[in-house]
Amino acid sequence: MGTCINHPDRETPYICMKHQIYLCEECLECRDPKIYCKHRSACPIWFMSKRKAGWEAEDKQAAATHTVTFLPDGRTVSVPADSTLLEAAQAAEIHVNASCSGKGSCGKCKLVVTSGEVSTQSTPLLTDLEKEKGYVLACQSQITGDVSVQIPEETLARKLKIAGMGQAVTDRLNRLVTDIDPMLQEIPLTLEHPSLDDSVSDLDRLNRGLKKQGCDVDRLNVGIKVMRQLTEVVRRDNWNITVSVVRRKCANEILEVRPGNGQHQSLGLAIDVGTTTIVVYLIDMSDGSVLAATAGHNRQADCGDDVINRIVCAEKDGVKKLSRMALATINDLIGEALDSVDAKREAVRNVVVSGNTTMAHLLLQIEPRYLRRDPYIPTVSDFPILKAGEIGLKANPMAAVFIMPGPASYVGGDIVSGILYTGFHREDPVTLFIDIGTNGEIVLGNKEWLMTAACSAGPAFEGGGIRWGMRAEEGAIEKVTIDPQTLVPTLSTVGDAPPRGICGSGMIDLIAELLKTGIVDRSGQFATELGNDRVRKQGDEWVYVLTVADETPVNEDIVFTASDLKNLIYSKGAVYAGFTTLLGEAGMDFSMVDRMIITGGFGQYLNIEKAVTIGLLPDIDRSRFAYMGNSSIVGAYMALLSTTYRQEARTICNSMTYVDFSSNPSYMDEFTSALFLPHTDLNAFPSAVAGVS
Amino acid sequence: MGTCINHPDRETPYICMKHQIYLCEECLECRDPKIYCKHRSACPIWFMSKRKAGWEAEDKQAAATHTVTFLPDGRTVSVPADSTLLEAAQAAEIHVNASCSGKGSCGKCKLVVTSGEVSTQSTPLLTDLEKEKGYVLACQSQITGDVSVQIPEETLARKLKIAGMGQAVTDRLNRLVTDIDPMLQEIPLTLEHPSLDDSVSDLDRLNRGLKKQGCDVDRLNVGIKVMRQLTEVVRRDNWNITVSVVRRKCANEILEVRPGNGQHQSLGLAIDVGTTTIVVYLIDMSDGSVLAATAGHNRQADCGDDVINRIVCAEKDGVKKLSRMALATINDLIGEALDSVDAKREAVRNVVVSGNTTMAHLLLQIEPRYLRRDPYIPTVSDFPILKAGEIGLKANPMAAVFIMPGPASYVGGDIVSGILYTGFHREDPVTLFIDIGTNGEIVLGNKEWLMTAACSAGPAFEGGGIRWGMRAEEGAIEKVTIDPQTLVPTLSTVGDAPPRGICGSGMIDLIAELLKTGIVDRSGQFATELGNDRVRKQGDEWVYVLTVADETPVNEDIVFTASDLKNLIYSKGAVYAGFTTLLGEAGMDFSMVDRMIITGGFGQYLNIEKAVTIGLLPDIDRSRFAYMGNSSIVGAYMALLSTTYRQEARTICNSMTYVDFSSNPSYMDEFTSALFLPHTDLNAFPSAVAGVS
Repeated sequence: MGTCINHPDRETPYICMKHQIYLCEECLECRDPKIYCKHRSACPIWFMSKRKAGWEAEDKQAAATHTVTFLPDGRTVSVPADSTLLEAAQAAEIHVNASCSGKGSCGKCKLVVTSGEVSTQSTPLLTDLEKEKGYVLACQSQITGDVSVQIPEETLARKLKIAGMGQAVTDRLNRLVTDIDPMLQEIPLTLEHPSLDDSVSDLDRLNRGLKKQGCDVDRLNVGIKVMRQLTEVVRRDNWNITVSVVRRKCANEILEVRPGNGQHQSLGLAIDVGTTTIVVYLIDMSDGSVLAATAGHNRQADCGDDVINRIVCAEKDGVKKLSRMALATINDLIGEALDSVDAKREAVRNVVVSGNTTMAHLLLQIEPRYLRRDPYIPTVSDFPILKAGEIGLKANPMAAVFIMPGPASYVGGDIVSGILYTGFHREDPVTLFIDIGTNGEIVLGNKEWLMTAACSAGPAFEGGGIRWGMRAEEGAIEKVTIDPQTLVPTLSTVGDAPPRGICGSGMIDLIAELLKTGIVDRSGQFATELGNDRVRKQGDEWVYVLTVADETPVNEDIVFTASDLKNLIYSKGAVYAGFTTLLGEAGMDFSMVDRMIITGGFGQYLNIEKAVTIGLLPDIDRSRFAYMGNSSIVGAYMALLSTTYRQEARTICNSMTYVDFSSNPSYMDEFTSALFLPHTDLNAFPSAVAGVS
Repeated sequence: MGTCINHPDRETPYICMKHQIYLCEECLECRDPKIYCKHRSACPIWFMSKRKAGWEAEDKQAAATHTVTFLPDGRTVSVPADSTLLEAAQAAEIHVNASCSGKGSCGKCKLVVTSGEVSTQSTPLLTDLEKEKGYVLACQSQITGDVSVQIPEETLARKLKIAGMGQAVTDRLNRLVTDIDPMLQEIPLTLEHPSLDDSVSDLDRLNRGLKKQGCDVDRLNVGIKVMRQLTEVVRRDNWNITVSVVRRKCANEILEVRPGNGQHQSLGLAIDVGTTTIVVYLIDMSDGSVLAATAGHNRQADCGDDVINRIVCAEKDGVKKLSRMALATINDLIGEALDSVDAKREAVRNVVVSGNTTMAHLLLQIEPRYLRRDPYIPTVSDFPILKAGEIGLKANPMAAVFIMPGPASYVGGDIVSGILYTGFHREDPVTLFIDIGTNGEIVLGNKEWLMTAACSAGPAFEGGGIRWGMRAEEGAIEKVTIDPQTLVPTLSTVGDAPPRGICGSGMIDLIAELLKTGIVDRSGQFATELGNDRVRKQGDEWVYVLTVADETPVNEDIVFTASDLKNLIYSKGAVYAGFTTLLGEAGMDFSMVDRMIITGGFGQYLNIEKAVTIGLLPDIDRSRFAYMGNSSIVGAYMALLSTTYRQEARTICNSMTYVDFSSNPSYMDEFTSALFLPHTDLNAFPSAVAGVS
């Protein structure tokens, strides 16, 4: 760091290597030659190449570059000198875990330098053993020459497996929609040939043909592009055409006219854009069958795990960057789905996207800045039907895109989509609907009323901020029991692979077991006098050893630390406080809740009993709990096929009353009370207490 | 000319100078390497640089260029060797008369070579005297080296003067519209600040504000661009905004949201796109006053005088070229109008364009090919409201553009606009409405019914195909009387300038005088025995001398030839046959016509009496004739300011019955009968006959 040559009050990390002068970010971005040109034209100014594309081109020749080789693949990339290893990995399109968005605080982006040198910041997030082995944090290591790095097992973001493909998903979903009624309709027409006695314009002739098919042509728009193509298109196949008409709330629009009126394949996409995971279903619009389903990690994860980090990143680097990242993932998944059935993107003419409000804003390149600032206002809640081409989706550019409406900054279209699927808004029983991820969204209500709120659970359930935390990927410890005598755990992992870390459901299991076996107490303190190898001090902290080094490909003990436990207690406390606060707002308590619906990927492996034991879920009759899977994608599927469901989604969104917890004094009290295992009010957890004590 | 190396049955002018092989146009345009590549890669292939931009770039280095200097301005341009002088003039943006679109048939594009050499085709359109002086036809002369050319007076297309500017036009038009009601409305709003208790999205807040102003938000669309800007825009001036809403037939749309809700200047444009002349009115939308009026020659004239030549050109070079040419003229005129009142294009938010069907198609880049082919079908008659940005008009890109609807290929929006202004469609009297130009459009009817037809008058009235014909520009002879004794004419010219040629009204005057004085007879034959210098043989033809060489800046006798007369008789015959045929279709004759409205620039200088004398107009009570000026621009002005008038234009268009003359056997009979002065049926012209004999 140094002082900007133009602004002596500003510290800046940017230095011109040739002139040894510092310039602050504003000066770098300023195009006034008086400010920077005198230093710039002859300088390599290596730092500019980092993020400032406009300068990069000009400085390319001058800027030094180094080659980075990533093992075990051997992929190489050439990057500007002094890039970080994380930037190099991004340039090489290798997706390493980087929960904290490169701040150096999550410790996930570990790499091993095998040859060459990097300049790395010291960090407490690496153990001495790791440092000895050459481990560095990718985001904290600047490249000073050609270098080779090994990507350890635990750092690689692995390809997701999606549960239920093709026929299985079709069987599950097919009964949900009976009358298929897409946004964009394909209308085959044979027009009457023009003659001197019938010389109306091509467009009028088209409208006449549509009117005969029952289309309301008085409410029909048409754009200049269609008009420009129309002359040739109607004549190419002897006045046989197919017209694509999109049905909107207030007026319909002719989006495309094609020659020929034979049968065309018509495909649709239901897309669930999660903060962590993106799921794509490719649908045959003729019968609603699911032709393919693909899933992958949202590439935005390079900018951090949670929506707040994403918004911060968008404020810094521009919303377009985040949009591109999400689109890269989505379009890869669409391509994969299309390839699997040998279909072309042009055949995709209907799309529904479901995602939380931040995901929707970022995808559409709408400024997300105010989503995270009091009073938390989204720019758009209820989106008009868009065209795939204008938002960059890999589909027919004319494809109609419905974005699931979301009522608030922290309760988005994914929740509305989930309600649409689970359908409790059409029923009498009072339902508590929850979707737990980095944010916990909660909906309470029935067919008469709907209240909703969101609480910040933090990234712990998804592995963030946890020493060996990871997502529910292959090798994640998802179930744990601990022998009360030996304190040795029995583990199950996702895919029965050797353990690489622990995922959210595994942590809940683990905490319940730690509590049962007395390794930790209700306040989250480790028992320090057990005299067992599994419970020991590592550095300054007490840890529980889940796996010893020689049983895991990571070649290190996988442990669960006191800090990890504290983070988890905060997370579960935030969620539980959400339940009780929202119930309080409605003047209710858990006894009046007829049903509790859990959705989202996290719930999939959740052990209800153990979640009650640690106080994440309320201690109510277990038969009232229901797990409904990824309800967001299923709601999107329903809306894709049905106008009624699209309308119903809008109705749900408009009828939800949002309760803001940030301004709600009782939420903080409820939160504090919930920072115990299971809770300070043990009376609320009779069975949980009985099970442990 | 030679035989195409690939198609021995085809003659082609295109030769490769290196290999001395000929290639036809299809081969040149074909991208199959087997066909042309073997000859192409190493060739200068000079001819390709003429029109094939795709090849031009590749061949640029190889192609030789020459410099052409145009005097008296001294403007120079560098063009590929073997370009024509006409192409060089176009490249230099010098607009020379080229009525026939470079075919060498009109003889208008005369230039004088003052130094250097050109390779020129011999032509009967230049006199021996002219050839001696170094005159060549620009379109028939290929450049073989650096060259200087003088542009003679009569060749230059001069800047148009527009009748009635600013206040005068305002005074004339202001009473036409009482309630101003633009397409695009500017709605100033102060939105309520958001709070935790009122956390609806920015877009919902905006809609709420609009609803309070009485806007029907249920029928309101909004696009992705507005959504992307909305976040910042609403906050920039403390929730004070101005919303631009365009009102469409079926649904309205938010086109723009700007910070601030103070008064903004709001301008509108009424544009009359004539085949020959384009007129632009700049309007203050707050009170309908005309701030500026500008006019200029449609630059498409480089591709020929009439719509057929324009369509042929579009088929050959692509419709985009013709669109660009019209836009160049329109945007220059808009710029001139804006500059004259120191206004910015961004302030222009409403535009109405009136033009014939070909002009509308070309401007909007809609394929015009079928307009000139049986059964003469336009692609679009009734246009949706467009945005200025999507069609390239120099206005706010969001400006709403209304294109005057036109019922048929040869009866367009300019005629509908004229009816709107003259208003006879609202009245009882049967009216015959005519607009004579290259095409003569005729409308017959009253408030009960409207019939319309078009006849091809040919370019003679606008100076095309006439030896010394020209438009009604400075120096054009517009009035002629001939002394019956001496046969010496008395001339008036436009702008009282020395005569440079003769315009349409001048020709009608002249023919009537030639008839009266016995210089020509009723069949159009010149009297050959008069023994007067004014009537003499020039080459093979009899001519009447209007001006001798030393009285004109063109330094040559200005004459009117027997061929000129024949062309004029054809033109007037075509128009008159149009009247009688259309009346016949309605089962009427001239006695049942209560009023005859003449519009268009040509009518401005027309002497009704003399037009009757030669049989262009019917011999009815002169009080029934009315000249209404440029009715197209006035109708556009009215539609610009009023929703009612825009709707009325649509109603007029839909209620017109089009009669096609090309398929009507009686039209040819009527035409043949009208090839006399005034007509074979002299009984139909009692007063005309009396006046002459």
